[in-house]
Amino acid sequence: MLESTSKTVLHCYPGLVALITAKSGDKQNIMAAGWHSYISYDPPIYGVAVAKERFTHHLIEESKKFAINFVPAEYAHFIELSGKKTGVDGDKFERMFAKWKEGEVTGAPILQSAYVAYECEVIDTNTYGDHDWLVGKITRFHQDKEKFGQDGLPDFNKLQLPLFLGQSKYLIADNATTLKEIDLGK
Amino acid sequence: MLESTSKTVLHCYPGLVALITAKSGDKQNIMAAGWHSYISYDPPIYGVAVAKERFTHHLIEESKKFAINFVPAEYAHFIELSGKKTGVDGDKFERMFAKWKEGEVTGAPILQSAYVAYECEVIDTNTYGDHDWLVGKITRFHQDKEKFGQDGLPDFNKLQLPLFLGQSKYLIADNATTLKEIDLGK
Repeated sequence: MLESTSKTVLHCYPGLVALITAKSGDKQNIMAAGWHSYISYDPPIYGVAVAKERFTHHLIEESKKFAINFVPAEYAHFIELSGKKTGVDGDKFERMFAKWKEGEVTGAPILQSAYVAYECEVIDTNTYGDHDWLVGKITRFHQDKEKFGQDGLPDFNKLQLPLFLGQSKYLIADNATTLKEIDLGK
Repeated sequence: MLESTSKTVLHCYPGLVALITAKSGDKQNIMAAGWHSYISYDPPIYGVAVAKERFTHHLIEESKKFAINFVPAEYAHFIELSGKKTGVDGDKFERMFAKWKEGEVTGAPILQSAYVAYECEVIDTNTYGDHDWLVGKITRFHQDKEKFGQDGLPDFNKLQLPLFLGQSKYLIADNATTLKEIDLGK
């Protein structure tokens, strides 16, 4: 039964985790962000919550640029590693053996294992509680088209998606997952 | 292979769809929002993208209040119905046969079929492209605790979640979905 409470209930998963990358000068970093959202379709705008104390926040503040990367299930360990190590102590990409290329518009690292990535330029930042909400205009898209069907949806025979559930657990969206189409009729 | 493009790639699903409810005077409405995110844990703050022309946007502008509702898979038709009808022509709740109770703090309708709901008071609104990003402080939580395990995660024997994929298609998170735990070791 649905009951009300004043105690915090954090429910927003299962969902995709975004790997946020940024570069400033000769420093670069990657972090996992569970709180992110598309905001506008035209022009394309994306938002992500990043705590001020994160090393990546510092790099984005300096460069005003970041990238959003989504990786397939076989790279879900990148999500865990990015979330649990800090970039202050050295290059997290090297330590994770993560290959990347330089973003064309932003210079932010684009993961070569990503199936979709967005390069963003910061257009607004607001502090809400314990996080900053960073809003970025998408200036370049990257996609591994072979992993999507003709309908534009992921081809689960070629692409399995890690959906973060909490506590290092992931549901895997694959071709065995129950699929339901809702037909409302006429 | 990951290739860059200037053509918009909209990828943020599969994910939970939030049903946004609002009330102003004797009018109330419900809409489906695919673009939403937790922003802050303490204090708890939630954000959602709502286009200005939506009837629900109008109600939130007047009342400065809204609620976020998450429904189980057997109510996924509410998501489709809420997304495809307008509340201007009459009470969408009645037409969907959706039972609700009045939110304790906001007066916004809380769906009785929801397994989690948040009552929110608007603390900020910004226009980004074709949507407004509404930021709300969560003033009351609602949860059907019986549907969650002792670890706080959904009990998929009791609760199946509809994860919107696009084009009226949903992946169903249930006890048959592949679950992977990532152990990084020491």
